[in-house]
Amino acid sequence: MIVDCHGHYTTAPRELEDHRQKQIAGLKDPKLSPGKANLNISDDQIRDSLESAQLKLQRERGTDITIFSPRASGMGHHIGDAQTSEHWSEACNELIHRVCMLYPQNFVGVCQLPQSPGVRPQNCIPELERCVKEYGFIGCNLNPDPSGGHWSEPPLTDRWWYPLYEKMVELDVPAMVHVSMACNPCFHTTGSHYINGDTTAFMQFLTSDLFKDFPTLKFIIPHGGGAVPYHWGRYRGIAQDMKRPPLKELLLNNVYFDTCVYHQPGIDLLLKVIPADNILFASEMVGAVRGIDPQTGHYYDDTKRYIDANTSLGAGDKQKIFEGNARKVFSRFKGR
Amino acid sequence: MIVDCHGHYTTAPRELEDHRQKQIAGLKDPKLSPGKANLNISDDQIRDSLESAQLKLQRERGTDITIFSPRASGMGHHIGDAQTSEHWSEACNELIHRVCMLYPQNFVGVCQLPQSPGVRPQNCIPELERCVKEYGFIGCNLNPDPSGGHWSEPPLTDRWWYPLYEKMVELDVPAMVHVSMACNPCFHTTGSHYINGDTTAFMQFLTSDLFKDFPTLKFIIPHGGGAVPYHWGRYRGIAQDMKRPPLKELLLNNVYFDTCVYHQPGIDLLLKVIPADNILFASEMVGAVRGIDPQTGHYYDDTKRYIDANTSLGAGDKQKIFEGNARKVFSRFKGR
Repeated sequence: MIVDCHGHYTTAPRELEDHRQKQIAGLKDPKLSPGKANLNISDDQIRDSLESAQLKLQRERGTDITIFSPRASGMGHHIGDAQTSEHWSEACNELIHRVCMLYPQNFVGVCQLPQSPGVRPQNCIPELERCVKEYGFIGCNLNPDPSGGHWSEPPLTDRWWYPLYEKMVELDVPAMVHVSMACNPCFHTTGSHYINGDTTAFMQFLTSDLFKDFPTLKFIIPHGGGAVPYHWGRYRGIAQDMKRPPLKELLLNNVYFDTCVYHQPGIDLLLKVIPADNILFASEMVGAVRGIDPQTGHYYDDTKRYIDANTSLGAGDKQKIFEGNARKVFSRFKGR
Repeated sequence: MIVDCHGHYTTAPRELEDHRQKQIAGLKDPKLSPGKANLNISDDQIRDSLESAQLKLQRERGTDITIFSPRASGMGHHIGDAQTSEHWSEACNELIHRVCMLYPQNFVGVCQLPQSPGVRPQNCIPELERCVKEYGFIGCNLNPDPSGGHWSEPPLTDRWWYPLYEKMVELDVPAMVHVSMACNPCFHTTGSHYINGDTTAFMQFLTSDLFKDFPTLKFIIPHGGGAVPYHWGRYRGIAQDMKRPPLKELLLNNVYFDTCVYHQPGIDLLLKVIPADNILFASEMVGAVRGIDPQTGHYYDDTKRYIDANTSLGAGDKQKIFEGNARKVFSRFKGR
């Protein structure tokens, strides 16, 4: 079985975005605010949105199941307030739940959290619990920068976040560290803000004792870990200069990287530098890069091909990357 | 000849930092402000600060000359106002000039710019001209985020920066894009802020037509280009999805990467993915990582070893990386 641990519902029916636009309009003029009941999306619309996209690509590429969450750039935690994020997260998560009910063989849910800048993370606990206990979701996406590119929240290692971590540990669910759309013009959402978010989170973990406080807390750093594997020597060296333990001991029982790296040399580096036990297969399709690489004739984000073509790892390690590690990290994932 | 294009005076005599601390104290109480004449550093102190550090390492590692600038994390553009940055930049650049006069075979100067958040970049022109024309400096370090981690300035591709670029083109000097210390607790200065700055700048360039407006403007993106080479497929794909020209055509006449990547797999990826014409040798010693890698028994930042050990590039390409490209990009560098 091949588990893609990183997919977002980027192809959701247009009604979802219309609903969001009404919600945003309602921030200025409450009369324009959409009632919750007014998000009408039929099962057929959901099927249509997936059959020609994620499901088609699963079949073509030979992957089996996608750990699926709302569109990351669409989380937009910087918009409105805590209630705005609550309503929007509920709507998005409910839609993911419907996807997972329609295609239980193909999708398993991960939730968006109703974060909002300056609002305490424990505010996210009810939605996390609802999604895990009622919907059977197996993880959450945690945004280290709900401001959308101003980085106004405390680091992920600050006690500010601890109540949420306590709940994650209790529920035994991991978080993928994933920023959302950048509203700071310095950053391109998928080109720099995403990658910077990954690198930033890793470095926060490196300089803290978070995992002494939470030995079973688990994070996936997506997009191949941002810049981290490429600069693995730098990070080993910085940790050493700071008299921190070796990275393996310091982090690698708790931090995992996905394989959303869209060319062969990048995947080869990732598989060479990071222990196979810490890598989870992912493609983020349909996501940040949708085209076909003229150098290969295949989709940039068809990351399974790169892993298949990698010659340094054996079949056992690749099996961990494709399935075993996902089952370990997402311990609520019971397979299908 | 081996040219290291990225060295900072991280080992400057303690008096420099004392001077800075007085300057900062003077922001609150002008009585504490140091007179310019009160920065007393002798030639012997300068010699001592280099002989056992950069010069020793040059000899040991077999590199010849370092393109040398003030300590990047020390620029601290977020502190004080434009005048604060002016006085501080002048002091730092003068010290670099003295280094280059004492050791003309070993160092050639690049200047710090007196940037300040919200202050127009043309404000930096007098100091840039002074350093180039009076001191014979051959480039500058340009901070894309003088706020120190709040990213409050317009992107590097905004017309806001154009007057400075006009002067750079007129003087025929490149800029290394280099942030300074992070004052935002989300970021670790050398671990995430530096790397994010590199990735951010590259993506700004990718989405703009800056190099149509300035066909001869040249930037070096340090630290191996941040996350960029590792995610080269992602960047090729994003450019393609945006209907931008191929990266080679769009950027690679103007954008260069240094080799400050502190392990063999990272250097191997850089040399495989980025054309040899766009890579400049650098180590950033004495810099972000000062220890010895227990896996190799050598300094992490002894990047010459990784390039020497790389088997994919031939001698001609390595010669470009070690010397030829530096002469091309730093066209005022006349060798020794």
